[in-house]
Amino acid sequence: MKFGGTSLADAEKIRSAARRAVRTARQGHQVVMVVSAMGKSTDGLEDLARQVMRNKPAPKREMDQLLSTGEQVTIALMAMAIEEMGMPAISFTAGQIGMVTDERHTKARIKSIAAKTIHRQLDAGKIAIIAGFQGVTEAGAITTLGRGGSNVTLVAIAAALKADMCENYTDVDGIYTTDPRLVPTAKKISQISYDEMLELSSLGANVLHNRAVEFAKKYNVPIHVRSSLNNKKGTLIVAETESMERILVSGAALKNKLARISFRSVPDRPGVAAKIFHTMAKADIVVDDIIQNVDGNSAMVAFTTDLPELPDAKKVCDKIAKDLGCSVTYEKYLAKVSVVGVGMRVHTGVAERMFAALAKAKINIQNITTSEIKISCLIDCKDATRALNLVHDAFKLGGKKRQAKKTAKKTRKK
Amino acid sequence: MKFGGTSLADAEKIRSAARRAVRTARQGHQVVMVVSAMGKSTDGLEDLARQVMRNKPAPKREMDQLLSTGEQVTIALMAMAIEEMGMPAISFTAGQIGMVTDERHTKARIKSIAAKTIHRQLDAGKIAIIAGFQGVTEAGAITTLGRGGSNVTLVAIAAALKADMCENYTDVDGIYTTDPRLVPTAKKISQISYDEMLELSSLGANVLHNRAVEFAKKYNVPIHVRSSLNNKKGTLIVAETESMERILVSGAALKNKLARISFRSVPDRPGVAAKIFHTMAKADIVVDDIIQNVDGNSAMVAFTTDLPELPDAKKVCDKIAKDLGCSVTYEKYLAKVSVVGVGMRVHTGVAERMFAALAKAKINIQNITTSEIKISCLIDCKDATRALNLVHDAFKLGGKKRQAKKTAKKTRKK
Repeated sequence: MKFGGTSLADAEKIRSAARRAVRTARQGHQVVMVVSAMGKSTDGLEDLARQVMRNKPAPKREMDQLLSTGEQVTIALMAMAIEEMGMPAISFTAGQIGMVTDERHTKARIKSIAAKTIHRQLDAGKIAIIAGFQGVTEAGAITTLGRGGSNVTLVAIAAALKADMCENYTDVDGIYTTDPRLVPTAKKISQISYDEMLELSSLGANVLHNRAVEFAKKYNVPIHVRSSLNNKKGTLIVAETESMERILVSGAALKNKLARISFRSVPDRPGVAAKIFHTMAKADIVVDDIIQNVDGNSAMVAFTTDLPELPDAKKVCDKIAKDLGCSVTYEKYLAKVSVVGVGMRVHTGVAERMFAALAKAKINIQNITTSEIKISCLIDCKDATRALNLVHDAFKLGGKKRQAKKTAKKTRKK
Repeated sequence: MKFGGTSLADAEKIRSAARRAVRTARQGHQVVMVVSAMGKSTDGLEDLARQVMRNKPAPKREMDQLLSTGEQVTIALMAMAIEEMGMPAISFTAGQIGMVTDERHTKARIKSIAAKTIHRQLDAGKIAIIAGFQGVTEAGAITTLGRGGSNVTLVAIAAALKADMCENYTDVDGIYTTDPRLVPTAKKISQISYDEMLELSSLGANVLHNRAVEFAKKYNVPIHVRSSLNNKKGTLIVAETESMERILVSGAALKNKLARISFRSVPDRPGVAAKIFHTMAKADIVVDDIIQNVDGNSAMVAFTTDLPELPDAKKVCDKIAKDLGCSVTYEKYLAKVSVVGVGMRVHTGVAERMFAALAKAKINIQNITTSEIKISCLIDCKDATRALNLVHDAFKLGGKKRQAKKTAKKTRKK
């Protein structure tokens, strides 16, 4: 069971998570908890570091030493809460269970876990509580696992222990067919494959970080994403099954505030594209949706970047264009609407249906990119939310139930 | 260098302590810092534990896991502050320098320190910053050292490294001849022996906890107690020297709010005193100033306890008196005034001079206890502050300079 920071924001919430673990243990399960730092406590530590460093970047080893205390506070309090409820518990820092990582401070990768230490405590009837987000190097330095690190800890522990189930408690009910804030009919998905989840989260639906999902896929660990506020079933993230292929599209996603950079009349000779993207990478600018077209003996190379990165990107690209003797243009305020589904692997007509829905509403598609289980269209920012709703409807992703329930309620009131 | 919590209460104070360490390092010294948790941060953690535990006592292992984060935050921030000033630094938790203790959580005793790890960093030109108050068991569990633990860490590290000097930075200027809040002429002592310090701090002058002083005495580590707010010399706590013996009395102390418990007509047979004090100890009541007098074939046994403990003590003592068939009386609102000095070992007349000063002021002495370097008189609470001033004057402990300076200033103003 993993609980995120918002589900652990105060003593009462910690006790609530503890109750859930105790209940599960009393049903006869062996329970391991992975916990994040309480609420906004990490922000407080980062703020102290900024004050001490006068806004200069802090040494990474010390940053890890600092931030790892947040989770250490929570594991101790969680163990106390469980003991207070009459169930034996023991807390572990990453160091105490030999969660060994490489030496890359602030974004370390897990190398091994001493599962034996945890098994011994579970077999003694205890609930084991493990600090998420952190690791330890062979030499004993504390590391952290970077963004989404606690989920990586969850999946790594589950894999190492060969757990039957991995429960990710969060402040949402599960994974939705699309962002419910933008599409009112968005519906909770009961089951989704690792690959679909990877495509959706890379598109900005950030319930689980991709690193955790990749880890879960590699070790075939099922993850149940569910709410810490109720007992409803959430979304099960599992390996692809045949029945999943019957569904054409599982979800739709939107990524807003993109910019497109297009090089035209690029000399069509080997190594040119490599030069462009090598230079961008060196400048630490993330690019996506790359398209290359050859026309005669010159080529067009286009790609997107996040709008806030455009000023930096411009400097680099102007220089590249000058060096290559080609032209470069910039378009701001673009958005990308995508549909994802493993069903695309066996069914045709998905792209068609998507394009038709957008065309009918007179939304111009500026760019199309596809993967095996995803189709993305680049459109104007102003059309973004409308386009997402249209596409969501076109694939009948919307929930009817919710609407029906509301009506029923209204009727009763009358 | 050790800095206490009040000297590290915010980012600015951490930077101020860092500047001091950097300055000392730039003078060519190898510098190790031992730091406490920031300001009142430990109180905040204890409060969280109380909320989670619903005021029940927390499991001690988890309490240590929790409280040790306070110092871990400070070491990381201190290392950052030093790095920001252009000096290389590295922080260490107790676990990272093998500060191994026994398994007694919340009051562990240090068994060994891996000094090599620290020496290696010092030799590489770094300032090493070590978390005070904490240790680690052979099995890797985090322990804490109990009250005054950070000072114990300081002295233990200094002993392990064979440090030339141990600087204890605090919010007072040093050790005073007596409590300056009660005696305006109290003067800073420039040098004091371990034994005198032990007697004074057991009398309530709590700058350094006795465990740290005992440790310093055992390993002959000189401690310089000084202010973190200025560069003035403080008080040096060192091994006894011959020159110290020339001074009759080094300091005077007051312990207020005591109660006396007297058993009378106690059957004078072996084992009776043992029974009384064994019963008190079992009830966890701390006693002091024990006196026993035999008169014919019955005895009188009296001792003091802290006034707040009297209600508990009464229950126990009434029962003891009943069992022994003797009487017991209780006196509230007593105080103990004491003088301390290694000079008493070679000089006579100290007790005499003390009694005369009190007698002249018509202060009744209810009880006298002595050690090799201390004389204590039990008096009425209402006379306490007056008695302390009288005794302080009688041994000419008062500072003339301070008085003189004030007058000079006044004269100039005129």
